[in-house]
Amino acid sequence: VRNVYHDELDAVTASLVEMAGLVGTAVRRATVALLEADLDKAEAVIDADEHIDSIYRATDARVFNIMARQQPVAGDLRIVFTSLRMLADLERMGDLALHLAKIARLRYPSSAVPQELRPTIREMGEIAERLVAKVGRVIAEQDAEQAAELDDDDDDMDALHRRLFTLMLDPSWSHGVEPAIDMTLVGRFYERFADHAVSVGRRVVYLVTGERDAPPAPAVLVQSSSGVMDG
Amino acid sequence: VRNVYHDELDAVTASLVEMAGLVGTAVRRATVALLEADLDKAEAVIDADEHIDSIYRATDARVFNIMARQQPVAGDLRIVFTSLRMLADLERMGDLALHLAKIARLRYPSSAVPQELRPTIREMGEIAERLVAKVGRVIAEQDAEQAAELDDDDDDMDALHRRLFTLMLDPSWSHGVEPAIDMTLVGRFYERFADHAVSVGRRVVYLVTGERDAPPAPAVLVQSSSGVMDG
Repeated sequence: VRNVYHDELDAVTASLVEMAGLVGTAVRRATVALLEADLDKAEAVIDADEHIDSIYRATDARVFNIMARQQPVAGDLRIVFTSLRMLADLERMGDLALHLAKIARLRYPSSAVPQELRPTIREMGEIAERLVAKVGRVIAEQDAEQAAELDDDDDDMDALHRRLFTLMLDPSWSHGVEPAIDMTLVGRFYERFADHAVSVGRRVVYLVTGERDAPPAPAVLVQSSSGVMDG
Repeated sequence: VRNVYHDELDAVTASLVEMAGLVGTAVRRATVALLEADLDKAEAVIDADEHIDSIYRATDARVFNIMARQQPVAGDLRIVFTSLRMLADLERMGDLALHLAKIARLRYPSSAVPQELRPTIREMGEIAERLVAKVGRVIAEQDAEQAAELDDDDDDMDALHRRLFTLMLDPSWSHGVEPAIDMTLVGRFYERFADHAVSVGRRVVYLVTGERDAPPAPAVLVQSSSGVMDG
């Protein structure tokens, strides 16, 4: 039975999909800003974050009102709970794109990315974009199959993250400490971005299949003295 | 009027306080593990994380059941919503302590912390411990005044985080890239730990005063070529 209540839930879903679109634009621009030292792109990401946050707040308030007025029962309650978490994931992904843009701005007019790391950062950016585009589709279509694919994309991100450490620890690294600090943070931001995308995917799987979600597995990549390892 | 419903809410609060205690132990041990290359302490943190996660899951399920059975009205609903977020903050703080411990374990039998960074890391650890102890009290006592103090403690953490970058970028830095990568991650983990503590504080202020919380301000510290700056 369609009613005002379900219209409200649809509006929440539409906001989540809109946020995924905005976060996708943000991370695409942030990657260009980093690689091309494009200050306009960096500023565009920084300016747009307030819009993402405002959708976050409005949607959060909408969910609260749904709960207060409609007192949903178990099945719908699961949707509401899960929506709140996807909302938090997407808001955080927006912040991570913002952090990337701020590093680009800080190093302008230079590129923050040393030459030999450019292909790796470019690929990390592409995967981030692909992940968030998939997140938007998965939310819109409640597609558990596509949601499960997000884990594989995240594996690709982890492999690139390891490669980043390998390159920085190579004896041929000539850029010193400052770019290593920058790239450690940049790598971490892309990796966390991917983690949150996976987290959204798991929440959709939970919604569709009822399979309870655990908190996201703690993932931290740290390099060992003899190469890299997944901590 | 006391009833089963309020007993359930009290049980949620008790679980949050318990988690704060466990997370406090975790971050204290992780700091010792980093500074003293204490493998037992690192392993203890790593082993204890599953317990924190299990309280997270049980409390999350409890909140869901409260909502499904009791259909709380606006005032109580605010408590329930806020509890869910504090729960997520504390779970994440536990993960960050875990990440610190894993870096300590990775560098064992060496200490991950170069000599000249030891005082800074020690202080970051002390602030992290103080923050989470305060978080536990603030949740237990619904103390908005103490909650507001968390912001000041976080300012101290940010100052130490900036000092960390200054020390790594000093011309006298002789440790090369690998410890710089480690310490960039360690600094980030302590800083995020503090951010989540502040976030809990804001949520308690919101609960007590009704003042609506914004998403946590995105904070990233990045070093500029001429010292440090707060991005």
